[in-house]
Amino acid sequence: MKAAIAGVGYTALTKHSGKTPLGLAREACQAALDDAGVPASAVDGIASFAVMHDSAPCVSVATALAVPQLRFVVDADLGGQAPCYLVWLASMAVATGHAENVLVFRSLNGRSGARVGTMEFSGAGGQYRYPIGYDAYLMYCAMWARRFLHETGQTEEDLGAVAVAQRTYAASNERAYKRWPLTLEEHQGQSYVCEPFRPDDCTVEVDGACAVLVTSVERARDLRRPPAVIASGAFRAGPRPGLDIGDHLLWADYTRNYTSILRDELFGRAGVTPADVDVAEIYDCFTSTVLMGLEGLGLAERGGAGDLVRSGRLPINTHGGLLAEGYLHGMNTVAEAVTQIRAGHEVCAVTSGALMDGSALVLVNDR
Amino acid sequence: MKAAIAGVGYTALTKHSGKTPLGLAREACQAALDDAGVPASAVDGIASFAVMHDSAPCVSVATALAVPQLRFVVDADLGGQAPCYLVWLASMAVATGHAENVLVFRSLNGRSGARVGTMEFSGAGGQYRYPIGYDAYLMYCAMWARRFLHETGQTEEDLGAVAVAQRTYAASNERAYKRWPLTLEEHQGQSYVCEPFRPDDCTVEVDGACAVLVTSVERARDLRRPPAVIASGAFRAGPRPGLDIGDHLLWADYTRNYTSILRDELFGRAGVTPADVDVAEIYDCFTSTVLMGLEGLGLAERGGAGDLVRSGRLPINTHGGLLAEGYLHGMNTVAEAVTQIRAGHEVCAVTSGALMDGSALVLVNDR
Repeated sequence: MKAAIAGVGYTALTKHSGKTPLGLAREACQAALDDAGVPASAVDGIASFAVMHDSAPCVSVATALAVPQLRFVVDADLGGQAPCYLVWLASMAVATGHAENVLVFRSLNGRSGARVGTMEFSGAGGQYRYPIGYDAYLMYCAMWARRFLHETGQTEEDLGAVAVAQRTYAASNERAYKRWPLTLEEHQGQSYVCEPFRPDDCTVEVDGACAVLVTSVERARDLRRPPAVIASGAFRAGPRPGLDIGDHLLWADYTRNYTSILRDELFGRAGVTPADVDVAEIYDCFTSTVLMGLEGLGLAERGGAGDLVRSGRLPINTHGGLLAEGYLHGMNTVAEAVTQIRAGHEVCAVTSGALMDGSALVLVNDR
Repeated sequence: MKAAIAGVGYTALTKHSGKTPLGLAREACQAALDDAGVPASAVDGIASFAVMHDSAPCVSVATALAVPQLRFVVDADLGGQAPCYLVWLASMAVATGHAENVLVFRSLNGRSGARVGTMEFSGAGGQYRYPIGYDAYLMYCAMWARRFLHETGQTEEDLGAVAVAQRTYAASNERAYKRWPLTLEEHQGQSYVCEPFRPDDCTVEVDGACAVLVTSVERARDLRRPPAVIASGAFRAGPRPGLDIGDHLLWADYTRNYTSILRDELFGRAGVTPADVDVAEIYDCFTSTVLMGLEGLGLAERGGAGDLVRSGRLPINTHGGLLAEGYLHGMNTVAEAVTQIRAGHEVCAVTSGALMDGSALVLVNDR
């Protein structure tokens, strides 16, 4: 029994929702159910993730939806690695017959509430990182980006190409927060936030929520929308034996992230190759992770991701991405993949996460 | 592809470990790997749960074990509902080919560190519960226990029968914290902690850790120990549409818990009946939850659980349970079930959780 995504739902993405994360989550989940034509009474699973306790517990959201009973609940202690992974876990529950209809959501007041972009990381290393100003995720990714550009022979104009391309897509996306256009000249003229990142290299924090509904392919075929079949999923944490799981600062090669590690497993399980991919939704907390993801998955050659983006040969982050639609922590990246499969694309590669731990899905058309 | 538990591991259970939860977790996980004869390099999944941040993150434990990469990671925001559920999730990952060898552990300094028994619950309702002294899990369970005894015609002597029987088992368990015997007279002579609970109706808080290794039945057959085959698992949260998921104070029937709700699913999936069960490991934060679990699963008739315990017809909580071995939050309840299957029992019912949300497994002998 294979699983599929049968519904997607969003709230508006705003600077100030005036709502609780619970209210936003309920709204997005209900929208996903309505999109599929599935009543809340048929839901028996729910999964989400949070950092900084900025979301709502799954059982609270289920209660708000009037879900009768739950067989599958995962409140994961994960960040941007989570969306594809939780959908993949949900698909296991569906495939094994444990659950029938599983909601996966992310809800946050990421602009008016706790802002992930200013997050200081705690833990043993914090005391060493903070005094040198190396304490926010922005700085981690900036270091990786600089090394990636240097080693692959790419430039800040390749980063800019990602920002420009995604803003072009965002212009026709009514949900997008940044719907105004961007030129490469404008991008290059911006001051650095943290080298090599300018403001438009960084995701835009918003308030909002996004949800998807996972069910079996068989059930999905009887619902309102064509199924986006989950052909494969993969999750990886940790690249080297015993050294650096969960601590990407010890990783030796800052030009590759988890996408290069899970690639063979992901495509092998799906029975497709990177050449079969006709649309890609790549996690983009920063422009650099799009380039690294495209190369990691083998959708572009090493050093060739910027050229691929400029060429327009492959549709990438067709909603404008987290950079322009808004930072729903990658949940909207998965939802956009569903929209693209519904629009007729055959094989969509989706990723969640920026550095050494992350997840990915291959969604395919049901034919 | 079915899954099995191939290894179990424990630390010593003490009043003061002098170790970190990370160190305890590593020790128990390594013991489970050694028990199975599986190297840490073959592990690709790990799951745990915590309350009050009193454990160690899965990726830290994997790093301490020198695990190379992880395909499956779940740090669940769950309490005593979790052990059977996490093993069941791990078995889905194994059954679908996503992961091969998954550790599930619980580690805590439950005596020298954060004591779960004194936990005050936060949340919206806390402000109403605290002023009337209704703020710890002990009080929640005591109210359920009183109602359960009243409605089923059982007495505090039935609670005592559980405590006495489990202490008899504990006497021959070298790990057990309370290895000294207990008589019903001694039990009845104790002062109440919170009516109807006396001290020996309550779990004993300890420092320690416990882990199990989940793998495929095929792989398990080539390992050191006979596999405990995971025939079935189930998890349920929430009994009534839209009212009380996660809030058991709104449940209308305090004489039944989640075991009565998931029973049919659990046994149906396993292809066995309650009559086939020849050993039971029932979550026992308090004596009352054993009685309620036995009746909920259909192992005893309504009102007949105390008689079943006294009769000795069915081995129940054969390690002494959380009441006498020690409170490793039910992870040791699962591990003991494995030990019983290895000892020749055919069908073991295991539960995790006390009130309206919880999980269960059916483990069977591989023949």
